[in-house]
Amino acid sequence: MSELTLVVGSKNFSSWSLRPYLALAHTGQPFREVLVPLDTPETAALIAMHSPSGRVPVLKHGDTVVWDSLSICEYLAETFPDAKLWPQQSAARAMARSVTTEMHSGFQALRSHLPMDITARKTVPGVDAPGVHADIARIQALLSGCRERHGKGGPFLFGDFSIADAFYAPVITRFVTYGVPFRPELTSWRDAVLGLPAMLKWTEAARGEAPLARYR
Amino acid sequence: MSELTLVVGSKNFSSWSLRPYLALAHTGQPFREVLVPLDTPETAALIAMHSPSGRVPVLKHGDTVVWDSLSICEYLAETFPDAKLWPQQSAARAMARSVTTEMHSGFQALRSHLPMDITARKTVPGVDAPGVHADIARIQALLSGCRERHGKGGPFLFGDFSIADAFYAPVITRFVTYGVPFRPELTSWRDAVLGLPAMLKWTEAARGEAPLARYR
Repeated sequence: MSELTLVVGSKNFSSWSLRPYLALAHTGQPFREVLVPLDTPETAALIAMHSPSGRVPVLKHGDTVVWDSLSICEYLAETFPDAKLWPQQSAARAMARSVTTEMHSGFQALRSHLPMDITARKTVPGVDAPGVHADIARIQALLSGCRERHGKGGPFLFGDFSIADAFYAPVITRFVTYGVPFRPELTSWRDAVLGLPAMLKWTEAARGEAPLARYR
Repeated sequence: MSELTLVVGSKNFSSWSLRPYLALAHTGQPFREVLVPLDTPETAALIAMHSPSGRVPVLKHGDTVVWDSLSICEYLAETFPDAKLWPQQSAARAMARSVTTEMHSGFQALRSHLPMDITARKTVPGVDAPGVHADIARIQALLSGCRERHGKGGPFLFGDFSIADAFYAPVITRFVTYGVPFRPELTSWRDAVLGLPAMLKWTEAARGEAPLARYR
Protein backbone atom coordinates (compact mmCIF):
# COMPACT_ATOMS: atom_id res chain seq x y z
CA MET A 1 0.00 0.00 0.00
CA SER A 2 1.28 3.47 -0.84
CA GLU A 3 2.44 5.69 1.99
CA LEU A 4 0.36 8.73 2.91
CA THR A 5 2.16 11.95 3.83
CA LEU A 6 0.42 15.16 4.85
CA VAL A 7 2.43 18.39 4.73
CA VAL A 8 0.99 20.98 7.10
CA GLY A 9 1.83 24.46 8.39
CA SER A 10 2.22 25.66 11.99
CA LYS A 11 -0.63 24.06 13.91
CA ASN A 12 -1.58 27.09 15.94
CA PHE A 13 -2.17 29.16 12.80
CA SER A 14 -2.75 27.04 9.71
CA SER A 15 -6.51 26.73 9.49
CA TRP A 16 -6.14 25.32 5.97
CA SER A 17 -3.96 22.47 7.30
CA LEU A 18 -6.22 21.54 10.20
CA ARG A 19 -9.11 20.65 7.86
CA PRO A 20 -7.56 17.79 5.86
CA TYR A 21 -5.71 16.65 9.00
CA LEU A 22 -9.05 15.97 10.70
CA ALA A 23 -10.41 14.25 7.60
CA LEU A 24 -7.30 12.10 7.20
CA ALA A 25 -7.30 11.16 10.89
CA HIS A 26 -10.94 10.11 10.51
CA THR A 27 -10.03 7.57 7.83
CA GLY A 28 -7.98 5.67 10.41
CA GLN A 29 -5.17 5.27 7.87
CA PRO A 30 -1.61 5.54 9.17
CA PHE A 31 0.13 8.63 7.78
CA ARG A 32 3.38 10.51 8.04
CA GLU A 33 3.30 14.19 8.84
CA VAL A 34 5.68 16.91 7.67
CA LEU A 35 5.36 20.21 9.49
CA VAL A 36 6.60 23.42 7.85
CA PRO A 37 6.85 26.31 10.34
CA LEU A 38 5.11 29.33 8.81
CA ASP A 39 6.43 32.87 8.60
CA THR A 40 10.14 32.09 8.82
CA PRO A 41 12.87 32.98 6.30
CA GLU A 42 12.92 29.33 5.20
CA THR A 43 9.17 28.80 4.90
CA ALA A 44 8.78 29.47 1.17
CA ALA A 45 11.73 27.24 0.22
CA LEU A 46 10.51 24.41 2.46
CA ILE A 47 6.97 24.56 1.05
CA ALA A 48 8.29 24.66 -2.53
CA MET A 49 9.96 21.29 -1.89
CA HIS A 50 6.50 19.73 -1.50
CA SER A 51 3.85 21.91 -3.07
CA PRO A 52 3.09 22.77 -6.70
CA SER A 53 1.00 25.76 -5.59
CA GLY A 54 3.54 27.12 -3.11
CA ARG A 55 1.09 26.59 -0.28
CA VAL A 56 0.26 24.04 2.41
CA PRO A 57 -1.45 21.65 2.93
CA VAL A 58 -0.31 18.99 0.47
CA LEU A 59 -1.07 15.27 0.49
CA LYS A 60 1.25 12.74 -1.08
CA HIS A 61 -0.04 9.25 -1.73
CA GLY A 62 2.47 7.18 -3.62
CA ASP A 63 3.14 9.14 -6.81
CA THR A 64 0.00 11.24 -6.50
CA VAL A 65 0.37 14.79 -5.17
CA VAL A 66 -2.85 16.51 -4.14
CA TRP A 67 -2.92 20.12 -3.06
CA ASP A 68 -5.52 22.42 -1.56
CA SER A 69 -7.45 21.53 1.59
CA LEU A 70 -10.71 20.72 -0.21
CA SER A 71 -9.15 18.74 -3.02
CA ILE A 72 -7.33 16.62 -0.43
CA CYS A 73 -10.58 15.97 1.42
CA GLU A 74 -12.37 14.95 -1.80
CA TYR A 75 -9.46 12.66 -2.66
CA LEU A 76 -9.63 11.02 0.77
CA ALA A 77 -13.42 10.61 0.47
CA GLU A 78 -13.00 8.79 -2.85
CA THR A 79 -9.97 6.74 -1.86
CA PHE A 80 -11.29 5.61 1.51
CA PRO A 81 -15.06 5.26 1.00
CA ASP A 82 -15.50 3.25 4.21
CA ALA A 83 -14.64 6.38 6.20
CA LYS A 84 -17.84 8.02 4.86
CA LEU A 85 -16.29 11.47 4.83
CA TRP A 86 -19.38 12.90 3.12
CA PRO A 87 -22.95 12.20 4.25
CA GLN A 88 -24.36 9.15 2.49
CA GLN A 89 -27.73 10.63 1.53
CA SER A 90 -27.63 12.75 -1.63
CA ALA A 91 -29.47 15.87 -0.39
CA ALA A 92 -27.43 15.92 2.83
CA ARG A 93 -24.23 15.50 0.83
CA ALA A 94 -25.21 18.37 -1.49
CA MET A 95 -25.78 20.63 1.51
CA ALA A 96 -22.54 19.49 3.16
CA ARG A 97 -20.62 20.33 0.00
CA SER A 98 -22.40 23.70 -0.28
CA VAL A 99 -21.45 24.84 3.22
CA THR A 100 -17.94 23.45 2.79
CA THR A 101 -17.32 25.28 -0.48
CA GLU A 102 -18.90 28.44 0.94
CA MET A 103 -16.21 28.35 3.65
CA HIS A 104 -13.52 27.42 1.13
CA SER A 105 -13.96 30.58 -0.95
CA GLY A 106 -15.71 32.95 1.43
CA PHE A 107 -15.77 34.73 4.78
CA GLN A 108 -12.85 36.97 3.92
CA ALA A 109 -13.65 39.47 6.67
CA LEU A 110 -13.60 36.77 9.34
CA ARG A 111 -10.38 35.36 7.97
CA SER A 112 -8.57 38.68 7.81
CA HIS A 113 -9.70 40.05 11.15
CA LEU A 114 -9.98 36.90 13.26
CA PRO A 115 -7.07 34.73 12.09
CA MET A 116 -6.81 31.30 13.66
CA ASP A 117 -4.63 31.45 16.76
CA ILE A 118 -5.78 28.39 18.68
CA THR A 119 -3.99 28.86 21.97
CA ALA A 120 -4.58 32.60 22.38
CA ARG A 121 -7.47 34.28 24.19
CA LYS A 122 -8.10 37.80 22.92
CA THR A 123 -10.71 40.47 22.81
CA VAL A 124 -10.15 42.16 19.53
CA PRO A 125 -10.88 45.23 17.55
CA GLY A 126 -11.36 42.74 14.72
CA VAL A 127 -14.79 41.67 15.89
CA ASP A 128 -16.12 45.13 15.10
CA ALA A 129 -14.48 45.39 11.68
CA PRO A 130 -16.82 45.78 8.70
CA GLY A 131 -18.14 42.49 7.43
CA VAL A 132 -17.08 40.46 10.46
CA HIS A 133 -20.51 40.55 12.11
CA ALA A 134 -22.19 39.60 8.84
CA ASP A 135 -19.78 36.66 8.44
CA ILE A 136 -20.41 35.48 12.00
CA ALA A 137 -24.19 35.73 11.60
CA ARG A 138 -24.14 33.82 8.31
CA ILE A 139 -21.87 31.11 9.73
CA GLN A 140 -24.07 30.57 12.78
CA ALA A 141 -27.18 30.44 10.60
CA LEU A 142 -25.73 27.89 8.22
CA LEU A 143 -24.35 25.72 11.02
CA SER A 144 -27.73 25.74 12.76
CA GLY A 145 -29.39 24.90 9.44
CA CYS A 146 -27.20 21.81 8.98
CA ARG A 147 -27.83 20.59 12.53
CA GLU A 148 -31.56 21.16 12.24
CA ARG A 149 -32.04 19.61 8.83
CA HIS A 150 -29.57 16.72 8.88
CA GLY A 151 -27.98 16.49 12.34
CA LYS A 152 -30.53 14.45 14.27
CA GLY A 153 -28.53 11.20 14.11
CA GLY A 154 -25.43 12.40 15.97
CA PRO A 155 -23.55 15.37 17.40
CA PHE A 156 -21.96 16.57 14.16
CA LEU A 157 -23.33 18.91 11.48
CA PHE A 158 -24.75 16.01 9.50
CA GLY A 159 -25.06 13.56 12.38
CA ASP A 160 -21.86 11.62 11.81
CA PHE A 161 -18.54 13.40 11.35
CA SER A 162 -18.03 14.73 7.81
CA ILE A 163 -15.74 17.03 5.85
CA ALA A 164 -18.13 19.87 6.70
CA ASP A 165 -17.14 19.55 10.37
CA ALA A 166 -13.47 19.57 9.39
CA PHE A 167 -14.03 22.77 7.39
CA TYR A 168 -15.73 24.58 10.26
CA ALA A 169 -13.34 23.35 12.99
CA PRO A 170 -11.11 26.45 12.58
CA VAL A 171 -14.19 28.65 13.03
CA ILE A 172 -14.79 27.01 16.39
CA THR A 173 -11.29 27.85 17.55
CA ARG A 174 -11.68 31.41 16.27
CA PHE A 175 -14.92 31.90 18.16
CA VAL A 176 -13.24 30.57 21.31
CA THR A 177 -10.09 32.68 20.81
CA TYR A 178 -11.96 35.93 20.20
CA GLY A 179 -14.86 35.34 22.61
CA VAL A 180 -17.61 35.08 19.99
CA PRO A 181 -20.63 33.45 21.67
CA PHE A 182 -22.05 30.23 20.22
CA ARG A 183 -25.79 29.90 19.73
CA PRO A 184 -27.16 27.47 22.33
CA GLU A 185 -28.03 24.89 19.66
CA LEU A 186 -24.39 24.81 18.53
CA THR A 187 -22.61 24.15 21.84
CA SER A 188 -22.96 20.36 21.70
CA TRP A 189 -21.58 20.38 18.16
CA ARG A 190 -18.68 22.61 19.25
CA ASP A 191 -17.85 20.24 22.11
CA ALA A 192 -18.03 17.19 19.84
CA VAL A 193 -15.51 18.72 17.41
CA LEU A 194 -13.20 20.00 20.16
CA GLY A 195 -13.32 16.53 21.74
CA LEU A 196 -12.22 14.61 18.65
CA PRO A 197 -8.97 12.77 19.46
CA ALA A 198 -7.32 14.31 16.38
CA MET A 199 -8.45 17.81 17.42
CA LEU A 200 -7.06 17.32 20.93
CA LYS A 201 -3.75 16.09 19.51
CA TRP A 202 -3.54 19.03 17.06
CA THR A 203 -4.32 21.54 19.83
CA GLU A 204 -1.71 19.99 22.13
CA ALA A 205 0.91 20.36 19.38
CA ALA A 206 -0.17 23.97 18.79
CA ARG A 207 0.56 24.78 22.43
CA GLY A 208 4.19 23.79 21.96
CA GLU A 209 4.83 26.04 18.97
CA ALA A 210 6.73 29.31 18.85
CA PRO A 211 4.60 32.36 18.01
CA LEU A 212 4.72 33.59 14.40
CA ALA A 213 7.22 36.34 13.66
CA ARG A 214 4.43 38.71 12.72
CA TYR A 215 2.87 38.37 16.20
CA ARG A 216 6.09 38.70 18.18
CA MET B 1 -37.64 13.65 -13.65
CA SER B 2 -37.02 16.72 -11.48
CA GLU B 3 -36.59 20.06 -13.19
CA LEU B 4 -33.17 21.69 -13.16
CA THR B 5 -32.95 25.46 -12.65
CA LEU B 6 -29.71 27.42 -12.61
CA VAL B 7 -29.77 30.92 -11.11
CA VAL B 8 -26.96 33.07 -12.52
CA GLY B 9 -25.76 36.67 -12.35
CA SER B 10 -25.10 39.09 -15.21
CA LYS B 11 -23.29 37.10 -17.87
CA ASN B 12 -20.70 39.70 -18.75
CA PHE B 13 -19.47 39.87 -15.16
CA SER B 14 -20.38 36.80 -13.11
CA SER B 15 -17.37 34.55 -13.43
CA TRP B 16 -18.78 32.36 -10.65
CA SER B 17 -21.95 31.76 -12.68
CA LEU B 18 -20.20 30.92 -15.93
CA ARG B 19 -18.44 27.91 -14.39
CA PRO B 20 -21.45 25.75 -13.42
CA TYR B 21 -23.27 26.95 -16.54
CA LEU B 22 -20.60 25.33 -18.71
CA ALA B 23 -20.66 22.16 -16.62
CA LEU B 24 -24.45 21.94 -16.70
CA ALA B 25 -24.55 22.55 -20.45
CA HIS B 26 -22.02 19.73 -20.87
CA THR B 27 -24.39 17.24 -19.20
CA GLY B 28 -26.84 17.77 -22.06
CA GLN B 29 -29.72 17.97 -19.56
CA PRO B 30 -32.47 20.48 -20.32
CA PHE B 31 -32.51 23.27 -17.72
CA ARG B 32 -34.27 26.49 -16.94
CA GLU B 33 -32.22 29.59 -16.34
CA VAL B 34 -32.98 32.51 -14.02
CA LEU B 35 -30.82 35.58 -14.54
CA VAL B 36 -30.39 38.10 -11.74
CA PRO B 37 -28.87 41.38 -12.97
CA LEU B 38 -25.99 42.28 -10.64
CA ASP B 39 -25.33 45.64 -9.03
CA THR B 40 -28.87 47.02 -9.13
CA PRO B 41 -30.99 48.19 -6.17
CA GLU B 42 -33.05 44.97 -6.46
CA THR B 43 -30.14 42.54 -6.77
CA ALA B 44 -29.86 41.50 -3.12
CA ALA B 45 -33.61 40.93 -2.75
CA LEU B 46 -33.77 38.92 -5.96
CA ILE B 47 -30.85 36.72 -4.98
CA ALA B 48 -32.29 36.18 -1.48
CA MET B 49 -35.37 34.63 -3.13
CA HIS B 50 -33.20 31.80 -4.42
CA SER B 51 -29.98 31.56 -2.47
CA PRO B 52 -29.28 30.52 1.14
CA SER B 53 -25.84 32.18 0.97
CA GLY B 54 -27.05 35.44 -0.57
CA ARG B 55 -24.93 34.78 -3.64
CA VAL B 56 -25.26 33.35 -7.12
CA PRO B 57 -24.96 30.81 -8.67
CA VAL B 58 -27.56 28.43 -7.24
CA LEU B 59 -28.82 25.16 -8.69
CA LYS B 60 -32.27 23.82 -7.90
CA HIS B 61 -33.02 20.21 -8.71
CA GLY B 62 -36.44 19.19 -7.45
CA ASP B 63 -36.33 19.91 -3.71
CA THR B 64 -32.55 20.05 -3.56
CA VAL B 65 -30.89 23.47 -3.47
CA VAL B 66 -27.16 23.53 -4.13
CA TRP B 67 -25.16 26.69 -3.84
CA ASP B 68 -21.57 27.68 -4.65
CA SER B 69 -20.06 27.15 -8.09
CA LEU B 70 -17.89 24.20 -7.06
CA SER B 71 -20.53 22.44 -5.01
CA ILE B 72 -22.90 22.68 -7.99
CA CYS B 73 -20.27 21.16 -10.29
CA GLU B 74 -19.61 18.29 -7.85
CA TYR B 75 -23.35 17.69 -7.59
CA LEU B 76 -23.68 17.57 -11.37
CA ALA B 77 -20.71 15.20 -11.65
CA GLU B 78 -22.35 12.81 -9.20
CA THR B 79 -25.89 13.12 -10.54
CA PHE B 80 -24.99 12.78 -14.23
CA PRO B 81 -22.02 10.40 -14.26
CA ASP B 82 -22.35 9.77 -18.00
CA ALA B 83 -21.25 13.38 -18.61
CA LYS B 84 -17.82 12.50 -17.11
CA LEU B 85 -17.37 15.97 -15.67
CA TRP B 86 -14.18 14.88 -13.90
CA PRO B 87 -11.37 12.91 -15.58
CA GLN B 88 -11.94 9.18 -15.20
CA GLN B 89 -8.41 8.27 -14.13
CA SER B 90 -7.73 8.79 -10.43
CA ALA B 91 -4.43 10.72 -10.63
CA ALA B 92 -5.81 12.98 -13.38
CA ARG B 93 -8.96 13.58 -11.33
CA ALA B 94 -6.88 14.46 -8.26
CA MET B 95 -4.92 17.01 -10.28
CA ALA B 96 -8.10 18.38 -11.87
CA ARG B 97 -9.64 18.89 -8.44
CA SER B 98 -6.42 20.49 -7.14
CA VAL B 99 -6.27 23.13 -9.87
CA THR B 100 -10.02 23.70 -9.61
CA THR B 101 -9.96 24.25 -5.86
CA GLU B 102 -6.84 26.42 -6.20
CA MET B 103 -8.89 28.70 -8.45
CA HIS B 104 -11.92 28.46 -6.17
CA SER B 105 -10.14 29.92 -3.15
CA GLY B 106 -7.19 31.76 -4.68
CA PHE B 107 -5.86 34.31 -7.14
CA GLN B 108 -7.28 37.25 -5.21
CA ALA B 109 -5.03 39.77 -6.95
CA LEU B 110 -6.18 38.67 -10.38
CA ARG B 111 -9.81 38.74 -9.30
CA SER B 112 -9.64 42.20 -7.76
CA HIS B 113 -7.62 43.88 -10.47
CA LEU B 114 -8.77 42.04 -13.60
CA PRO B 115 -12.49 41.43 -13.00
CA MET B 116 -14.33 39.47 -15.67
CA ASP B 117 -15.78 41.84 -18.26
CA ILE B 118 -16.19 39.55 -21.26
CA THR B 119 -17.12 42.04 -23.95
CA ALA B 120 -14.64 44.80 -23.03
CA ARG B 121 -11.12 45.26 -24.41
CA LYS B 122 -8.92 47.22 -22.02
CA THR B 123 -5.34 47.91 -21.24
CA VAL B 124 -5.26 48.29 -17.55
CA PRO B 125 -3.26 49.61 -14.68
CA GLY B 126 -4.43 46.37 -13.03
CA VAL B 127 -1.95 44.22 -14.86
CA ASP B 128 0.86 45.95 -13.00
CA ALA B 129 -0.74 45.74 -9.58
CA PRO B 130 1.14 43.78 -6.92
CA GLY B 131 0.43 40.09 -7.04
CA VAL B 132 -1.21 40.14 -10.49
CA HIS B 133 1.93 39.05 -12.33
CA ALA B 134 2.53 36.27 -9.83
CA ASP B 135 -1.07 35.07 -10.26
CA ILE B 136 -0.77 35.13 -14.05
CA ALA B 137 2.52 33.23 -13.99
CA ARG B 138 1.17 30.58 -11.61
CA ILE B 139 -2.02 30.15 -13.68
CA GLN B 140 -0.10 29.72 -16.94
CA ALA B 141 2.25 27.23 -15.27
CA LEU B 142 -0.55 25.13 -13.86
CA LEU B 143 -2.53 25.15 -17.10
CA SER B 144 0.54 24.08 -19.05
CA GLY B 145 1.17 21.38 -16.46
CA CYS B 146 -2.33 19.92 -16.92
CA ARG B 147 -2.06 19.94 -20.72
CA GLU B 148 1.39 18.38 -20.63
CA ARG B 149 0.63 15.68 -18.10
CA HIS B 150 -2.94 14.72 -18.93
CA GLY B 151 -4.06 16.60 -22.04
CA LYS B 152 -2.73 14.42 -24.84
CA GLY B 153 -6.10 12.87 -25.67
CA GLY B 154 -7.95 16.06 -26.61
CA PRO B 155 -7.87 19.86 -26.67
CA PHE B 156 -8.95 20.42 -23.05
CA LEU B 157 -6.87 20.56 -19.88
CA PHE B 158 -7.35 16.85 -19.24
CA GLY B 159 -8.03 15.84 -22.84
CA ASP B 160 -11.83 15.76 -22.67
CA PHE B 161 -13.78 18.68 -21.26
CA SER B 162 -13.91 18.70 -17.44
CA ILE B 163 -14.88 20.95 -14.53
CA ALA B 164 -11.29 22.23 -14.55
CA ASP B 165 -11.91 23.83 -17.97
CA ALA B 166 -15.12 25.40 -16.65
CA PHE B 167 -13.23 26.86 -13.71
CA TYR B 168 -10.54 28.43 -15.89
CA ALA B 169 -12.91 29.69 -18.61
CA PRO B 170 -13.27 33.10 -16.88
CA VAL B 171 -9.48 33.38 -16.81
CA ILE B 172 -9.46 33.02 -20.59
CA THR B 173 -11.89 35.91 -20.99
CA ARG B 174 -9.86 38.00 -18.55
CA PHE B 175 -6.64 37.39 -20.47
CA VAL B 176 -8.44 38.37 -23.68
CA THR B 177 -10.09 41.45 -22.13
CA TYR B 178 -6.89 42.78 -20.58
CA GLY B 179 -4.49 41.71 -23.31
CA VAL B 180 -2.54 39.15 -21.30
CA PRO B 181 -0.62 36.96 -23.78
CA PHE B 182 -1.23 33.20 -23.74
CA ARG B 183 1.73 30.84 -23.80
CA PRO B 184 1.94 29.19 -27.23
CA GLU B 185 1.07 25.77 -25.77
CA LEU B 186 -2.19 27.17 -24.39
CA THR B 187 -3.70 28.77 -27.50
CA SER B 188 -5.37 25.60 -28.77
CA TRP B 189 -6.91 25.04 -25.34
CA ARG B 190 -8.10 28.67 -25.25
CA ASP B 191 -9.73 28.27 -28.67
CA ALA B 192 -11.39 24.98 -27.69
CA VAL B 193 -13.00 26.58 -24.63
CA LEU B 194 -14.02 29.76 -26.45
CA GLY B 195 -15.54 27.59 -29.18
CA LEU B 196 -17.78 25.52 -26.90
CA PRO B 197 -21.40 26.06 -27.97
CA ALA B 198 -22.34 26.98 -24.40
CA MET B 199 -19.47 29.49 -24.21
CA LEU B 200 -20.55 31.12 -27.50
CA LYS B 201 -24.14 31.33 -26.26
CA TRP B 202 -23.08 32.84 -22.91
CA THR B 203 -20.82 35.39 -24.64
CA GLU B 204 -23.60 36.37 -27.05
CA ALA B 205 -25.94 37.00 -24.11
CA ALA B 206 -23.21 39.04 -22.37
CA ARG B 207 -23.04 41.36 -25.38
CA GLY B 208 -26.69 42.27 -24.92
CA GLU B 209 -26.39 43.27 -21.27
CA ALA B 210 -26.34 46.76 -19.78
CA PRO B 211 -23.05 47.73 -18.13
CA LEU B 212 -22.90 47.43 -14.33
CA ALA B 213 -23.72 50.60 -12.38
CA ARG B 214 -20.21 50.67 -10.98
CA TYR B 215 -18.70 50.85 -14.46
CA ARG B 216 -21.07 53.49 -15.83
